[in-house]
Amino acid sequence: MEITGKNLIGYSESALGSKTFQSLSPAKGEHLTGDFYAATDQEVAQTLKLAEQAFKSYSRISAEKRADFLDRITDEILALGDVLVQRACAESALPQGRIEGERGRTIGQLKSFAQLLRDGFWLEATIDQANPDRPVAPKPDTRRLLVPVGPVLVFGASNFPLAFSTAGGDTASALAAGNPVIVKSHNGHSGTGELVSRAILKAAKDLGMPEGVFSFLHDEGIKVAGTLVKAPQIKSVAFTGSFKGGKAIYDLANTRPDPIPVFAEMGSINPVILFPSALEKHGEAYADLYAGSITLGTGQFCTNPGLMIALKSEHLENYIKLLGNRIKEIAPCSMLTQPVYQGFRDNLKTLLEQKEVIKVSESTGSAEAKQLEGTPTLARVSAQAFIKNSQLQEEVFGPLSLIVQCEDLEEMQAVCAQLQGQLTVTIMGDEEDVLNHNGLIQELSEKTGRIIFNNVPTGVEVCASMQHGGPYPASTDARFTSVGTSAIKRFARPLTFQNWPDAALPGELRNGNPLNIWRLLDNQWTKEPIN
Amino acid sequence: MEITGKNLIGYSESALGSKTFQSLSPAKGEHLTGDFYAATDQEVAQTLKLAEQAFKSYSRISAEKRADFLDRITDEILALGDVLVQRACAESALPQGRIEGERGRTIGQLKSFAQLLRDGFWLEATIDQANPDRPVAPKPDTRRLLVPVGPVLVFGASNFPLAFSTAGGDTASALAAGNPVIVKSHNGHSGTGELVSRAILKAAKDLGMPEGVFSFLHDEGIKVAGTLVKAPQIKSVAFTGSFKGGKAIYDLANTRPDPIPVFAEMGSINPVILFPSALEKHGEAYADLYAGSITLGTGQFCTNPGLMIALKSEHLENYIKLLGNRIKEIAPCSMLTQPVYQGFRDNLKTLLEQKEVIKVSESTGSAEAKQLEGTPTLARVSAQAFIKNSQLQEEVFGPLSLIVQCEDLEEMQAVCAQLQGQLTVTIMGDEEDVLNHNGLIQELSEKTGRIIFNNVPTGVEVCASMQHGGPYPASTDARFTSVGTSAIKRFARPLTFQNWPDAALPGELRNGNPLNIWRLLDNQWTKEPIN
Repeated sequence: MEITGKNLIGYSESALGSKTFQSLSPAKGEHLTGDFYAATDQEVAQTLKLAEQAFKSYSRISAEKRADFLDRITDEILALGDVLVQRACAESALPQGRIEGERGRTIGQLKSFAQLLRDGFWLEATIDQANPDRPVAPKPDTRRLLVPVGPVLVFGASNFPLAFSTAGGDTASALAAGNPVIVKSHNGHSGTGELVSRAILKAAKDLGMPEGVFSFLHDEGIKVAGTLVKAPQIKSVAFTGSFKGGKAIYDLANTRPDPIPVFAEMGSINPVILFPSALEKHGEAYADLYAGSITLGTGQFCTNPGLMIALKSEHLENYIKLLGNRIKEIAPCSMLTQPVYQGFRDNLKTLLEQKEVIKVSESTGSAEAKQLEGTPTLARVSAQAFIKNSQLQEEVFGPLSLIVQCEDLEEMQAVCAQLQGQLTVTIMGDEEDVLNHNGLIQELSEKTGRIIFNNVPTGVEVCASMQHGGPYPASTDARFTSVGTSAIKRFARPLTFQNWPDAALPGELRNGNPLNIWRLLDNQWTKEPIN
Repeated sequence: MEITGKNLIGYSESALGSKTFQSLSPAKGEHLTGDFYAATDQEVAQTLKLAEQAFKSYSRISAEKRADFLDRITDEILALGDVLVQRACAESALPQGRIEGERGRTIGQLKSFAQLLRDGFWLEATIDQANPDRPVAPKPDTRRLLVPVGPVLVFGASNFPLAFSTAGGDTASALAAGNPVIVKSHNGHSGTGELVSRAILKAAKDLGMPEGVFSFLHDEGIKVAGTLVKAPQIKSVAFTGSFKGGKAIYDLANTRPDPIPVFAEMGSINPVILFPSALEKHGEAYADLYAGSITLGTGQFCTNPGLMIALKSEHLENYIKLLGNRIKEIAPCSMLTQPVYQGFRDNLKTLLEQKEVIKVSESTGSAEAKQLEGTPTLARVSAQAFIKNSQLQEEVFGPLSLIVQCEDLEEMQAVCAQLQGQLTVTIMGDEEDVLNHNGLIQELSEKTGRIIFNNVPTGVEVCASMQHGGPYPASTDARFTSVGTSAIKRFARPLTFQNWPDAALPGELRNGNPLNIWRLLDNQWTKEPIN
């Protein structure tokens, strides 16, 4: 399949603009095929109009048909075959195994949402039956379920060209909930995005979905993004990326005449608490484990363990030595994009210039130097210095971890009390450590969306019980997740029907429960119909 | 019980300030007993400190103990007896029957949340078991539930001195979720608030709740409110009142270094669609029904039917005549406060000055004139004039309804397409009207949180399936409700435990399901334990 670089607006291709840009191979520094056309005002307006129109019918399509649509998208993505894998590898510098794994995850996500639509419990269908004999005033019949909010704007993520981009979790959950989606293409992988968009549009057309259910727009700068965020037709925004980018979108959305929700997942340093028991018993194994986690995908994960907090001890010194040696052995890889590379270099430099921060080790490099290499690095600092300097909590997006050495438990508690909101917190230790440090665990729980025991934070399960989103500044809305099936709830809102005729209710709320879904009936979950 | 006018900060009374203000009887124009002390900066700081401290322990108290606390509050409120009823009547000008009913509702709400805590399904306890044999990578065990967010700031509502104020739905749901509450007293009923606060604090003290779980502060202006909204200790805000007030709080919260959610319920004109069948068959009955709904509580309900939309016909003319006559017969009552009264007069005047707006009728008054009388009024306008003039959608908070006459269904659809977000929409007609006007019903559904068939919008059930909150500007967050047990979800966020030791999990997530609550286990709702 050829990369045309055009905007994909409803079922049309469009290249009205005169401004184009190219996609770059970060590993080789070469321009890749395709001239991408920045969308014009006219193209943006047409996209919005189609999305608004599509909402009228797409929001009312049955859950089963939406599930079929998501399933068909997976077929079409797989049908792209190696062309997609090669393009994604070239644009991201991520290795083939990783991209193939990410494609598997993308397919898995779409299929999870398809299954969720068939299960139906996500709708929170809730029924409280009438009680005409209630004293004082009769109780009406009230029935509530979640309904789609309207067109959703999705920004692709640099670090997941497939799983968090064009047909990633945001798009999958927004489409699943019944909303048209407009994807603002990420310039780091515009060609990958075009291929995936064509797969989505083919599935949509084949299944008779309304035109405008999905569109895909390019822009090198922030103009198109700004226009879309402010557009009255857009009802919600999903973003994964930097704090700066996420916060700018959030602020812009809040200044609309009608503010809209922005779900921005803005990164995290994912503290890991290493209890003495862990370092004493498993120092070597954990050094291996964490060397892998810190450098996975060249450290370009939002759940990268960028901070490790431990008590001063011989065992800690040994762990630092072992981990430092592992880090030395890991060859640097090309980073995702020039800005990501530059950001890593600048932020690492700033970190290492901070008072008391000591570089422990860095990768000794590889035989064959690549472009935009992100060098795995380990650093350390005292708890007192960490507590005094908020700069040490700034994310260094890439293969870096900072070890904070605490004199005692009190100091460890003080370090934890100082932490900002995080996507994850990890505890390495014995069961007794968790049970005996209630206060510390409580403090850490308040700062995070996910708390992990004896594992690495990288690797986020796609399931109903996942929470990927933590207190600000990890994300703009800690009440929602961007990974797992609950992510669908970002793009829905409750609607209550009062005394509504049974025949006019959505199937999910009818007496007979024709879709056989779980419903909260008079405060009990059941699949039973109402007689 | 004496009204002291002091701030109630944790378990202490405090009157450090020199600025005081008094409470006014709207019906009689007299000052009521009590000088209320505007809280000083020092008092606000102490309140915040206590709330933050209380969160550490209150957030971890068992659901059963929190349920007992809510139940005990109801006992203490009832124990206030007539003193409370008389003070609330004096401060609000609402009749005794209404205040007694509102007390019943307040008690009912607190008890609903107590029951919800015992039922436990609201926690969305979700478990996906581990699968160590999964190909590619083992699946970890992940378990998720909702946890409290931190201290909540509650603003009392002028129109519900009991049910939406000091111990109203916001406070009840925030306390139920495990959060300390700070109430900024509403100046319209400061004495009522003090009495209720003392009941809450007595319950808290008797049951050994941490100091700071509840505090109550006064201020005549907006200074204390502003300081509280910006305070880092505050994690969420609930407000019921005007658009101007709600929007100001929302904007302020969004400019914090760490933005926090604001749940502002800001009013609505609650459109009622009158199909010809309704007017033909039930014109007289509906005129009675709506005359009551429009003037209920002197029109001071956020669900007051301020707009009625119907097709031109003889039956409509007859309905307008009948409704107009009923409105004439209803005696005006005193409004809640001087600003509410002034707002009603000003907004009504503005409405009646708009082009094509015709006053149909107004109350002929009562034998004995009262202070701050809100005069029941009915007006009418053409659909074309309504469509052209957005001023006609401005809420006139009080006993006013505007009838929009449409030439045909197309015009009716155009009027509905023009509507802003609403708390409720009501359809009066036959079942066939609902079934045959899919497009219109869809359009209206997109604009509201609750859609009602053949009933009045006033009267909001407190149950799991209620949605009170609609698309902006009806409320700032259409994804949540401020009435009904789901209101608790405003003050909680999900937390996922990964591979967490069973003994260290909250009881709600342990294998044995010791609390016997509904849990989503591998995508099925069940109360079964895990073996």
